[in-house]
Amino acid sequence: MRARTTAARAHHDPGTRGFASDNYAGAHPEVLAALAVANGGHQIAYGDDEYTDHLQRVMHGHFGPTAQAFPVFNGTGANVVALQAMTDRWGAVICAESAHINVDEGGAPERVGGLKLLTVPTPDGKLTPELVDRQAWGFDDEHRAMPQVVSITQNTELGTVYTPDEIRALCEHAHERGMKVHLDGARISNAAAFLDVPMRTFTNTVGVDVLSYGGTKNGAIFGEAVVVIDPDAVREMKRLRKLSMQLSSKMRFVSVQLEALLAGDLWLRNARHSNAMAQRLADGVRGVDGVEILHPVQANAVFARLPHDVSVRLQRRFRFYFWDEAAGDVRWMCAFDTTEDDVDAFVQALKEEMAR
Amino acid sequence: MRARTTAARAHHDPGTRGFASDNYAGAHPEVLAALAVANGGHQIAYGDDEYTDHLQRVMHGHFGPTAQAFPVFNGTGANVVALQAMTDRWGAVICAESAHINVDEGGAPERVGGLKLLTVPTPDGKLTPELVDRQAWGFDDEHRAMPQVVSITQNTELGTVYTPDEIRALCEHAHERGMKVHLDGARISNAAAFLDVPMRTFTNTVGVDVLSYGGTKNGAIFGEAVVVIDPDAVREMKRLRKLSMQLSSKMRFVSVQLEALLAGDLWLRNARHSNAMAQRLADGVRGVDGVEILHPVQANAVFARLPHDVSVRLQRRFRFYFWDEAAGDVRWMCAFDTTEDDVDAFVQALKEEMAR
Amino acid sequence: MRARTTAARAHHDPGTRGFASDNYAGAHPEVLAALAVANGGHQIAYGDDEYTDHLQRVMHGHFGPTAQAFPVFNGTGANVVALQAMTDRWGAVICAESAHINVDEGGAPERVGGLKLLTVPTPDGKLTPELVDRQAWGFDDEHRAMPQVVSITQNTELGTVYTPDEIRALCEHAHERGMKVHLDGARISNAAAFLDVPMRTFTNTVGVDVLSYGGTKNGAIFGEAVVVIDPDAVREMKRLRKLSMQLSSKMRFVSVQLEALLAGDLWLRNARHSNAMAQRLADGVRGVDGVEILHPVQANAVFARLPHDVSVRLQRRFRFYFWDEAAGDVRWMCAFDTTEDDVDAFVQALKEEMAR
Amino acid sequence: MRARTTAARAHHDPGTRGFASDNYAGAHPEVLAALAVANGGHQIAYGDDEYTDHLQRVMHGHFGPTAQAFPVFNGTGANVVALQAMTDRWGAVICAESAHINVDEGGAPERVGGLKLLTVPTPDGKLTPELVDRQAWGFDDEHRAMPQVVSITQNTELGTVYTPDEIRALCEHAHERGMKVHLDGARISNAAAFLDVPMRTFTNTVGVDVLSYGGTKNGAIFGEAVVVIDPDAVREMKRLRKLSMQLSSKMRFVSVQLEALLAGDLWLRNARHSNAMAQRLADGVRGVDGVEILHPVQANAVFARLPHDVSVRLQRRFRFYFWDEAAGDVRWMCAFDTTEDDVDAFVQALKEEMAR
Repeated sequence: MRARTTAARAHHDPGTRGFASDNYAGAHPEVLAALAVANGGHQIAYGDDEYTDHLQRVMHGHFGPTAQAFPVFNGTGANVVALQAMTDRWGAVICAESAHINVDEGGAPERVGGLKLLTVPTPDGKLTPELVDRQAWGFDDEHRAMPQVVSITQNTELGTVYTPDEIRALCEHAHERGMKVHLDGARISNAAAFLDVPMRTFTNTVGVDVLSYGGTKNGAIFGEAVVVIDPDAVREMKRLRKLSMQLSSKMRFVSVQLEALLAGDLWLRNARHSNAMAQRLADGVRGVDGVEILHPVQANAVFARLPHDVSVRLQRRFRFYFWDEAAGDVRWMCAFDTTEDDVDAFVQALKEEMAR
Repeated sequence: MRARTTAARAHHDPGTRGFASDNYAGAHPEVLAALAVANGGHQIAYGDDEYTDHLQRVMHGHFGPTAQAFPVFNGTGANVVALQAMTDRWGAVICAESAHINVDEGGAPERVGGLKLLTVPTPDGKLTPELVDRQAWGFDDEHRAMPQVVSITQNTELGTVYTPDEIRALCEHAHERGMKVHLDGARISNAAAFLDVPMRTFTNTVGVDVLSYGGTKNGAIFGEAVVVIDPDAVREMKRLRKLSMQLSSKMRFVSVQLEALLAGDLWLRNARHSNAMAQRLADGVRGVDGVEILHPVQANAVFARLPHDVSVRLQRRFRFYFWDEAAGDVRWMCAFDTTEDDVDAFVQALKEEMAR
Repeated sequence: MRARTTAARAHHDPGTRGFASDNYAGAHPEVLAALAVANGGHQIAYGDDEYTDHLQRVMHGHFGPTAQAFPVFNGTGANVVALQAMTDRWGAVICAESAHINVDEGGAPERVGGLKLLTVPTPDGKLTPELVDRQAWGFDDEHRAMPQVVSITQNTELGTVYTPDEIRALCEHAHERGMKVHLDGARISNAAAFLDVPMRTFTNTVGVDVLSYGGTKNGAIFGEAVVVIDPDAVREMKRLRKLSMQLSSKMRFVSVQLEALLAGDLWLRNARHSNAMAQRLADGVRGVDGVEILHPVQANAVFARLPHDVSVRLQRRFRFYFWDEAAGDVRWMCAFDTTEDDVDAFVQALKEEMAR
Repeated sequence: MRARTTAARAHHDPGTRGFASDNYAGAHPEVLAALAVANGGHQIAYGDDEYTDHLQRVMHGHFGPTAQAFPVFNGTGANVVALQAMTDRWGAVICAESAHINVDEGGAPERVGGLKLLTVPTPDGKLTPELVDRQAWGFDDEHRAMPQVVSITQNTELGTVYTPDEIRALCEHAHERGMKVHLDGARISNAAAFLDVPMRTFTNTVGVDVLSYGGTKNGAIFGEAVVVIDPDAVREMKRLRKLSMQLSSKMRFVSVQLEALLAGDLWLRNARHSNAMAQRLADGVRGVDGVEILHPVQANAVFARLPHDVSVRLQRRFRFYFWDEAAGDVRWMCAFDTTEDDVDAFVQALKEEMAR
């Protein structure tokens, strides 16, 4: 065989951005640079490398001295590994009907983990002790899957943010009933930026047992971690990560990305920026007649209701998704790389289409 | 909150290499460079990006015009997604007892996919039609999981390589019995380099239906792909990838790594080099009294038997694993970044320890 | 070893009956007699016996000439085998939030079948096309488990009965959207008795594809059957029954019980009687001040709301269950062996306790 | 609707018997009679009845005072419930390659329980400590499913019987390595009859932790039980039985059958008789030229090798199965209702066909 030398080529326009999702964005340059730092030489595979070791110390700074980080590939993986480690074969997880684990993971919790989800409708994506109680019963009934975990999302799938006190109340309520608390933190950085508090303030400090930390939407090329705050809340994380197909062989490349985000303030800069862009977008459209902002804009998402035909025309100019197409509801997401010009152009386009 | 700026720092010595595994190595610089090429701007998430689209054309060059590539995170993921897509809920997979899916995936095929593995002992890791027949029976018996797939590994876990004719015979045998053929290609590049033929010569050309293409051990930071050669051999690959938690949101970063390897000859250069290093190592130790080479050295692995205490002392100088500690068997793996000096130093150390 | 001859002895009072559940009752004497008819000699195991063969013809009389009956052990088994046969690995089932498969099967659908349940709240336990549409969307979205089946219960867990037209509308609605219809008929006989129509009138005639036929609550010692009306709606029932651990070796003893119920009118006599007893009970308490009947009494269940302390005292005299203890709701079930005297004594006791 | 009265009718010849399987037989008349004893009146469903309660005391007599019996429907169910209760999500079970759980349960252990089976070839169906060690390694390796249980079958699928000392050695070996021992006792009565010792002598007395007790092949219409000898060896049996779809609502009818077998000596009479018939059959054919008995005849099975065409002709006269058709191996099973005349007629027929 003769060899042909052809490097990978660019196939896209790096100047194009939209409002479809924060995972349409690429990686932050500092994250890419970190990959090169970790490259070269041999490192023990499957997590016994120096970068995964160092990541533990970085995580202690954010989530306290008991925190143990288990890097995984993606958010679904983080959630399903964490929830398996927190439950028995007969366990169930109480969550909001709108939770990502319930609606956006293709049934992975049920199929991979055998998990029963006990869902509760909630208008703003947030659970309360009262809502939890709609499913927190029948603990001794063999006919009912046993509620063992309450899973919340911070910020929620609707862009709303729990206060630390709200999470504390949920943790106390769950613990009193023998349940543990899992926090899906796919956008945890945005929540911290909105609340303007360290992440610990609404996790380990208030009783969260295990969380899924999200790096991908915060600027990584990929990479999340299950962060175990209470070691007694889980069993055999490493085995469950492996058998759930979430064990990276060259784990140093996951860990160093998380270090790039979390060792300094990159995580916070990225989150503050995307939040600010969402506020700018919401401010820009709030006055437009016929456009209604649907939920409090607290993170990097704006949910709005507007005429369906306007959305369709607007989608030809900027990518974004319908959230509830029948109702005319749409979701506009901002990312770490969204610019003020992007937002202003979008608001201008919206006004033009509304005026047609 | 005040922000602290601290970039990721180096925590390891990039000059240290051993012989433990090809996934102890980092990424090839051309792969890292490709990540930067794909970065910037927004791309549709979950696989509708330009890089994943282009990857299809790259794969056609290697595996024929019907090939469809579905990038995933890791090898276990590739295997379990592929095998689920090729089987029904009642299906079984015939494989060698030494197959990675049987011994090194923590039970993921059984637990995630509900797959029954029908294993056959084989001294060199290779199946034959006769060995397949030990398990290829009872197709109409509801008490027996139905054999639907024969899964082979190229090269095998023991470093041996099937000839194209051997694979052709297995494919014909399987197809005649209504079974499909899956090829676990975690080190498929090394096999092609050894045979000195294009990968198609022992895959699509001879009847393989679906393969797991391995990029990680060939120089990627992470990244594999299920390559479907016969579209009728699978069902709903995309859904199964998602529900098996192997769907990358920023998939462009998986695809561009595979492009970096496969668009030119990087895959082949890396494979030829690691194979050559294994040959050099085998040549170096072959004359050493008391050291026995165990299998034909056809790829980048050398299996050897030597006194246990020698191995233990040698492991203090170079990392490598016992394969069968009771028997005194060890495995020495070479990677794309193994140097001639690494090999020579290792052979020298081995001779010193044997002489003590 | 010396042998001791000791036959099984009676350990209970056969004169005691309550209102806890129709499966607190024993078996109808005609069913017991049928077991003896089928006994003796050898019959092929696992379903190739003469009784299972004959059962097919009996079922044709009830559910049309395409009906195929697959006897299983219990209702959960019937439901989970049927739903697996109707779905793919990526499928989901739309059902009422109150459905037995969702609340009373310990998570078996999720854990054994990997099934995702998409639930809809419904006040009377009945689905409608509009309620189905709350979950019947996203068919092409790999992130969402694909709705493939609508599962209804006849009569419902709340004792209400669908009219044939209501089921027809659901079937048409589901079929138009590419979904199949499963009917959980744990108490299908009671529904037919209430509607005073043959079972076919609200199953095969109106478009139901597969049903779980319930014999246990109708007077069997145990025994249900998946009845496949549309053979194209399922795949490999026999294999799925086996791997779901619902394959009886001496199946003749399941089949002959179903024959005892269904070949003549025993199924209908039993259902009419238990329905009549529920009506008598409802009539008896309807006038009692402080007792509210909660749902239309259409089958053999009476749901009522009364003071909690009254229920507690009453439970010391007759067994029955709270349905929603916080609300003071209880369920009173009548069985094929409930007598008029049982009902009258119960009503009298209720009145006494209300008067205290 | 008008009702038609038609009782179940006989569809088979109760005078026909063969040698296909002990589950081709019906039920022993004393078992049928026991069903009537337990009938009538209401009993708490799902296992809180008087018969299941009494069964505990009966089981204490056989398996010691710590024994807890959990009645289930069938043998596959007993095995898979027991093994789930003895393992974690990451656990594996070491068993003989010929074990029923590996070859005859349609993959139920893997699919329902997510269990990984680590199999060992064994010529006579029996494991030894040395054979166990082929798979009892890698306990700390996350890449390997963790061996947690050794499962043996008494008597084995090949009709051979472990001595109490052999089981004791296996239990000690397993316990020293942190593993538990499960005994699949689908034909445990035949083993006790052969050894002429109480069942406790080779179960609780020698260290077995959990067993599957088989009633069906011993004369029940259906019914097995998981018998937990060491309560610390399992977790949440009741929940696992429910979610594995093995919970009988009218459990009194399972329990009273087991009482009918075990309270007196019916279990032993039935087992001794079927064993004796197998000995008579083996004695009858041992002298026949061209017929080879393959394994020691220790229970109610005779394995033999004879010319294929002879078997085919013989099968037209008596039902039995090939065991390994290519090799010409067949299995002849005797049941509790096999008569001396049945055996003699079979031996005579065999001789006639051999002579043609």
